[in-house]
Amino acid sequence: MSEMEGPAFQRIPPWVKAKLSPKAIETIQKVHEWVETECIPAEPIMKAQLAEQGKRWTTQPLMHELRQKAKAQGLFNLFLPNHFKESPGLTNLEYACCAEIMGRVYWAQQTMNCHAPETGNIELLAKYCTPEQKKKWLQPLLDGTASSAYSMTEPDVASSDATQIGCRITREGNEYVINGRKLYGNCIWNSENKFYILMGCSDPENPNKWRRHSTVIVPTDTPGITQVRNLTIMGFDHAPEGHGEYIYKNVRIPVENIILGEGRAFEIAQGRLGPGRIHHCMRLIGQCERAYELALIRSIDTRKTPRGKLISAFDSNIERIAQMRLEIDAARLVVLNAADTMDIHGNKAGKYAIAQSKILVPIMATRVIDECMQMYGGQGLTQHTPLPEMWTYARFVRVADGPDAAHRHQVGRDEIKTAEGFKKRNVEYQRKYKELAKKYGKEYETFWGVSADI
Amino acid sequence: MSEMEGPAFQRIPPWVKAKLSPKAIETIQKVHEWVETECIPAEPIMKAQLAEQGKRWTTQPLMHELRQKAKAQGLFNLFLPNHFKESPGLTNLEYACCAEIMGRVYWAQQTMNCHAPETGNIELLAKYCTPEQKKKWLQPLLDGTASSAYSMTEPDVASSDATQIGCRITREGNEYVINGRKLYGNCIWNSENKFYILMGCSDPENPNKWRRHSTVIVPTDTPGITQVRNLTIMGFDHAPEGHGEYIYKNVRIPVENIILGEGRAFEIAQGRLGPGRIHHCMRLIGQCERAYELALIRSIDTRKTPRGKLISAFDSNIERIAQMRLEIDAARLVVLNAADTMDIHGNKAGKYAIAQSKILVPIMATRVIDECMQMYGGQGLTQHTPLPEMWTYARFVRVADGPDAAHRHQVGRDEIKTAEGFKKRNVEYQRKYKELAKKYGKEYETFWGVSADI
Amino acid sequence: MSEMEGPAFQRIPPWVKAKLSPKAIETIQKVHEWVETECIPAEPIMKAQLAEQGKRWTTQPLMHELRQKAKAQGLFNLFLPNHFKESPGLTNLEYACCAEIMGRVYWAQQTMNCHAPETGNIELLAKYCTPEQKKKWLQPLLDGTASSAYSMTEPDVASSDATQIGCRITREGNEYVINGRKLYGNCIWNSENKFYILMGCSDPENPNKWRRHSTVIVPTDTPGITQVRNLTIMGFDHAPEGHGEYIYKNVRIPVENIILGEGRAFEIAQGRLGPGRIHHCMRLIGQCERAYELALIRSIDTRKTPRGKLISAFDSNIERIAQMRLEIDAARLVVLNAADTMDIHGNKAGKYAIAQSKILVPIMATRVIDECMQMYGGQGLTQHTPLPEMWTYARFVRVADGPDAAHRHQVGRDEIKTAEGFKKRNVEYQRKYKELAKKYGKEYETFWGVSADI
Amino acid sequence: MSEMEGPAFQRIPPWVKAKLSPKAIETIQKVHEWVETECIPAEPIMKAQLAEQGKRWTTQPLMHELRQKAKAQGLFNLFLPNHFKESPGLTNLEYACCAEIMGRVYWAQQTMNCHAPETGNIELLAKYCTPEQKKKWLQPLLDGTASSAYSMTEPDVASSDATQIGCRITREGNEYVINGRKLYGNCIWNSENKFYILMGCSDPENPNKWRRHSTVIVPTDTPGITQVRNLTIMGFDHAPEGHGEYIYKNVRIPVENIILGEGRAFEIAQGRLGPGRIHHCMRLIGQCERAYELALIRSIDTRKTPRGKLISAFDSNIERIAQMRLEIDAARLVVLNAADTMDIHGNKAGKYAIAQSKILVPIMATRVIDECMQMYGGQGLTQHTPLPEMWTYARFVRVADGPDAAHRHQVGRDEIKTAEGFKKRNVEYQRKYKELAKKYGKEYETFWGVSADI
Repeated sequence: MSEMEGPAFQRIPPWVKAKLSPKAIETIQKVHEWVETECIPAEPIMKAQLAEQGKRWTTQPLMHELRQKAKAQGLFNLFLPNHFKESPGLTNLEYACCAEIMGRVYWAQQTMNCHAPETGNIELLAKYCTPEQKKKWLQPLLDGTASSAYSMTEPDVASSDATQIGCRITREGNEYVINGRKLYGNCIWNSENKFYILMGCSDPENPNKWRRHSTVIVPTDTPGITQVRNLTIMGFDHAPEGHGEYIYKNVRIPVENIILGEGRAFEIAQGRLGPGRIHHCMRLIGQCERAYELALIRSIDTRKTPRGKLISAFDSNIERIAQMRLEIDAARLVVLNAADTMDIHGNKAGKYAIAQSKILVPIMATRVIDECMQMYGGQGLTQHTPLPEMWTYARFVRVADGPDAAHRHQVGRDEIKTAEGFKKRNVEYQRKYKELAKKYGKEYETFWGVSADI
Repeated sequence: MSEMEGPAFQRIPPWVKAKLSPKAIETIQKVHEWVETECIPAEPIMKAQLAEQGKRWTTQPLMHELRQKAKAQGLFNLFLPNHFKESPGLTNLEYACCAEIMGRVYWAQQTMNCHAPETGNIELLAKYCTPEQKKKWLQPLLDGTASSAYSMTEPDVASSDATQIGCRITREGNEYVINGRKLYGNCIWNSENKFYILMGCSDPENPNKWRRHSTVIVPTDTPGITQVRNLTIMGFDHAPEGHGEYIYKNVRIPVENIILGEGRAFEIAQGRLGPGRIHHCMRLIGQCERAYELALIRSIDTRKTPRGKLISAFDSNIERIAQMRLEIDAARLVVLNAADTMDIHGNKAGKYAIAQSKILVPIMATRVIDECMQMYGGQGLTQHTPLPEMWTYARFVRVADGPDAAHRHQVGRDEIKTAEGFKKRNVEYQRKYKELAKKYGKEYETFWGVSADI
Repeated sequence: MSEMEGPAFQRIPPWVKAKLSPKAIETIQKVHEWVETECIPAEPIMKAQLAEQGKRWTTQPLMHELRQKAKAQGLFNLFLPNHFKESPGLTNLEYACCAEIMGRVYWAQQTMNCHAPETGNIELLAKYCTPEQKKKWLQPLLDGTASSAYSMTEPDVASSDATQIGCRITREGNEYVINGRKLYGNCIWNSENKFYILMGCSDPENPNKWRRHSTVIVPTDTPGITQVRNLTIMGFDHAPEGHGEYIYKNVRIPVENIILGEGRAFEIAQGRLGPGRIHHCMRLIGQCERAYELALIRSIDTRKTPRGKLISAFDSNIERIAQMRLEIDAARLVVLNAADTMDIHGNKAGKYAIAQSKILVPIMATRVIDECMQMYGGQGLTQHTPLPEMWTYARFVRVADGPDAAHRHQVGRDEIKTAEGFKKRNVEYQRKYKELAKKYGKEYETFWGVSADI
Repeated sequence: MSEMEGPAFQRIPPWVKAKLSPKAIETIQKVHEWVETECIPAEPIMKAQLAEQGKRWTTQPLMHELRQKAKAQGLFNLFLPNHFKESPGLTNLEYACCAEIMGRVYWAQQTMNCHAPETGNIELLAKYCTPEQKKKWLQPLLDGTASSAYSMTEPDVASSDATQIGCRITREGNEYVINGRKLYGNCIWNSENKFYILMGCSDPENPNKWRRHSTVIVPTDTPGITQVRNLTIMGFDHAPEGHGEYIYKNVRIPVENIILGEGRAFEIAQGRLGPGRIHHCMRLIGQCERAYELALIRSIDTRKTPRGKLISAFDSNIERIAQMRLEIDAARLVVLNAADTMDIHGNKAGKYAIAQSKILVPIMATRVIDECMQMYGGQGLTQHTPLPEMWTYARFVRVADGPDAAHRHQVGRDEIKTAEGFKKRNVEYQRKYKELAKKYGKEYETFWGVSADI
């Protein structure tokens, strides 16, 4: 494993290393070098291009340049599963290792066409579209010549319970007419955003609430779509992609833009989220590593010596650093196990492991990054460090795809179903205990002190 | 106490109510009405005026209007202690009750000329300036016709240890020449910002490190001051006041601009911070109350019914709401006790109580506001609510005037000095115990199991 | 206030000091001296007498001796409200200061006849009994010549919802017959325990569930009572009082042993708990102070120098010590405010403040004491320190009178009732905002970004 | 993998399952059945035998019986590494799976001769002893015919820094004479405890502090050893093994009882702790699973219906249950990864991963078990459930082998050594950034806003 000595592999646990293919090892190393040399040093340039007059909602020239370059180097669509011809053939586990590295810079994923919501959209289109639809909508995404958005959340319902989605899709002749309000799809102001994959309600009276919704493709230039505003996240506009707030008023699309058919939105939605959540979580871990490195660097900054000592000479900080290290590494084990579980048993069987990542990782990440900010004192909150953006991203992931309470509810309800089984085992323990009590002459004792009856 | 029935008084504990003068009761009620009717409904206007082309760093017309109106109503300079002629004569405890209400809107304090850093600067100038200086610098602040800033923090040292402040102040003839870098003074881009109160190092070789620094007044139009950038706080620019990052290059001021004399900066700094910290903390509590109200409102929003139930029908949310209520109220008791301690024993004796507020309140506030954001799901992070700004303000206060760890260190070091006293009491317990052991025939027993000797 | 200089008054906040009567000041000082000289040094003796062969469930001779002495000194029944002739006339606030000091030693309260459940029982009997009942049952408790217990909790229901109490009380002629199981009343094995105040179900079919239960007095020597075992709390037997687990089988008591009449148990229960909860919480704070002092003493123990430094020389410990200090003091403010609220507005109005103490203080106390144990390393868990008992007591208080979740639910439900009021205020904000938007030409803006309609 | 369907394998992650040998799979299943049928139902018997008059410090007859039976079934010494002839050949990872199951009952490990401190002692003796020593001291431990103890901690120094160990070992002729005080070696009152492996100071003046100490074998029947008392842990006496507090006064042992030679104690100690810590942690996870099952069972107990609903019908409890599930599973991943790392890279390379388990797992376990106790209300703290013992064991492991702060310090210090490397990478980012800034015409921008110079 001598090729796995460098920093790209340093935090990968042994059991994962042993599962990496030569191709994956090579790719991880290349992704590492890409991020180190092309992305991190370019962070201020990317910001500066966006800050130019009138360019806030224009994808940066440097982004286009880097995407071309990454594509040429074979660092494109790395997330793609095996069944795509463009797939580099990485397992979920292998790609997770890449995603962590990408996470070190917010937009690095995009240089490699591995960014949300594109990744989820690509998988969805690939899985459920007709060949004609694929040619028209999927291929440009794979080629990196177009962008797409995903539109599900609504301001007027509790969207974490997707059966409540209310945006209406009504058939009129050869068209679907869409009316409603949506939040969070990428900004229409960015002209590369070509279409929305929209989930809406096409059959509100259907007695089966899982059959009421449909998924359709809505080109961004369709008349009737208004972006009310760009939604900021903790004050950040997340330009040039953004998060739009939309009104759909009599938006008409051809019937061939429906995916899979009417009433099949839930079927489609189900397969979409698993891998994306893992990608998000691994990127958060990469962010945490970057934040942690900055904290380490600050801790040995010879200009910062409160009460005459380096920050790293305070044992309280030594403990804080250790605790961060331990928690980041523990979180990585959780996500890698989820990726591995998906590889072995499929996305559906991996549901629990995915939820485990989704719930535990963003909370860990906000806590760790917050601690790193604190080690920078007042400067930690300013643009002198990337930490505020990192914290905000982690906080965002905590509510993206539903707040963590919703996910905990799902896990908890599943767990409670197992209670009866444990109760039965406990009844059996008591039965055996009674035999033993008789045998050993201790019949007056009880099983855990609970007198069964008066 | 029938006049204290309304919402302005609802969370004030009985012992505080009993201490409020009729004047204070009237003022609290007026401040409440002011914020309810003039400030909260005006929040979007204040934002919109700032968003106009080229107006980012111009104090809003509405702000000027409200300040005039507040002044006319006697709601100006409420924070001012008794010894000022303009003082409304409120105690720290009474003003704290006002400050909480002001905290409900970020900029409400400014409408009443009770905003940081003005409040601290006014107290400083009033306490340490000559009559000539007062006339020139203090009076416009009291009149509300000028703004000032405070300049202490530096990027190149650990400013929480102020003896390290390195910006040089050198006397040349009748002038002081200033060279160095500063962070966090309000933006020079706002033309109402008329001068900086700056702390610098005038005598670096003085063997007494507490006599090396001086405090001077630097008019903002002095040549040589460059604002490198506005510092954002978690991405917010805090316009139109902002937080500047400055380079001072051969900035020359007349010698009469020194306060109190050379080497007296620490003397001056000492008196400045106590009340300001209490104001900050009470405003945070007001923010928490506002955030909490929004969470309550969300909890009964009939459009938001995950799994068919109001948010308030989930007992997990009921517990969360209760926990927030309990923690906000507990924090208020801490700050009110600190204000009361200052009233009774003075700022110096109140040092511990002030530190207690400074350490406990911002952490509570970030936690509570974060929970409120979470109850809003994805929307909670967007500009659909004021919560992101509130969270950011609370996070900022956690590092303003030094990170909480620095304050904990100070408290902890003072506490450890008390250890010897407790040890002596413990030795006395053991001595008495030995008498008792003899008397009761239990000499083989030990005091808390520690065998004193072999 | 020169008489309030000593350690007995050191942590009492100024606003409380100002409310203490001369009598209270004198009493607090006496309680302090009593605990310092008679209780703390006697801790091992009290343990040793209990450890003598066959004496586990016999109140210690030293306890009797100290009770006589305390009574002679006027340090008896301090908790008693004014309307008792034996009352020393302390307010809830004043007694709270005494209770904190008593808390420094687990059993000090008992030496002053201020221990649970006696205090609650005395108040109950005094409030609801006939003169004949008082003479028979109350007077011995006041005189300290008898002990009593309280019996409510049951193993077979969720006792935190007391309407579920199932133990049957059936009238037969001039007797009530009791059948059922009970947990947690003091041990019957201690011969000084003379009677139980028992809550049971006398009218299970009553449509009003608050009228189904009655409270009766059951002498411990009544046939049919079996103590199945003593309940340990985290392994501690809490001898010689203990916590019994009981079976009542056809236990017959005369009808004159009913308190207030059939169906009135809830009326009786309501008044009982408030002050007791405050006592518990103040004692916990006293325990925390004692634990904290031990941690301070450990921190300067010259034999304990990991890596060559005193424990107090590690800044992580300095921060821990500070944090403990701050949290204990904040908790004290909560409890003192609750006591003061009861003094001013009565127990019922103080309900919220009492719940605030009940929920926040035990959790703080377990956390602080746990931290103190940790500062003692391995020794902290052994009988070398009183910390394990202290932790256990704090943990116990967290579930006594219902787990904290039950109390949070109650607070949360009450809070949610206030949501409508805030919503109305919010609607008013929006109405005013619309006027302003018109006036300032910003009608396209929205209130907090929420587009009210499409 | 059809043989891995049952409850014994349910929580084992896929990557671990894939590494289990057929022998390991069989053993895990057998251990599961053993614990289910022989241990859990026997818990009250084991307690009852210990409670018999005069038997507190006598290993229970049932323990002997079960040990015979387990040995006969090949379930003995499972922890033993490959190089022992008795070794069942399990890897650390495989044994970790067994250890979790054993953890479900406190004493199950002992039935399989896999209990601390025996396991560590056996490894130590096997690694460092001469053949003669092995025959005399090791073989009886392997056969299960004798017990041993480990004696290192002292009351008079900070034992977490083992260089401070002060107990003197002085050579006199053919004997070593031992004088000092020790804590925590198993009770001498249990007659099966045959010898101590004791670490003491034999050469206090040696300039190399790592060569001052020696490890010797001290038979329990050597004159001069006094057990002052049994140390309780949170009140539990942990009979019949216990934790002794000892005085050694002129205790003489033959020189052949020294292990490896004078001054080599640290060499010996180093190898001892790693696997033991992993065993502890896996057993804690097994305890957590058991506690969790009990909480689940409680949650569907039809007798416990606060406010008319099952405990599992409260969504706050659903969230709590989910959070416990997630945290236990995350902790397991940490420990299994540590075991696997030891298998692949050895104990020394696994140091970090072992520390990660040691620090994170006990804290998780106390939190989870505490939550389970809370779900049982008042009963949760009593002997009606095994939860108090479980909590206490987890709390004990948090300080065993040094408090977690000591371990965090070690990790943190190692991490800070990596800071320079990250700083160098950061310097490189800035260098590259400057090239890019030139290329893209953005030279006025800075890298993360930090102006490098004035």
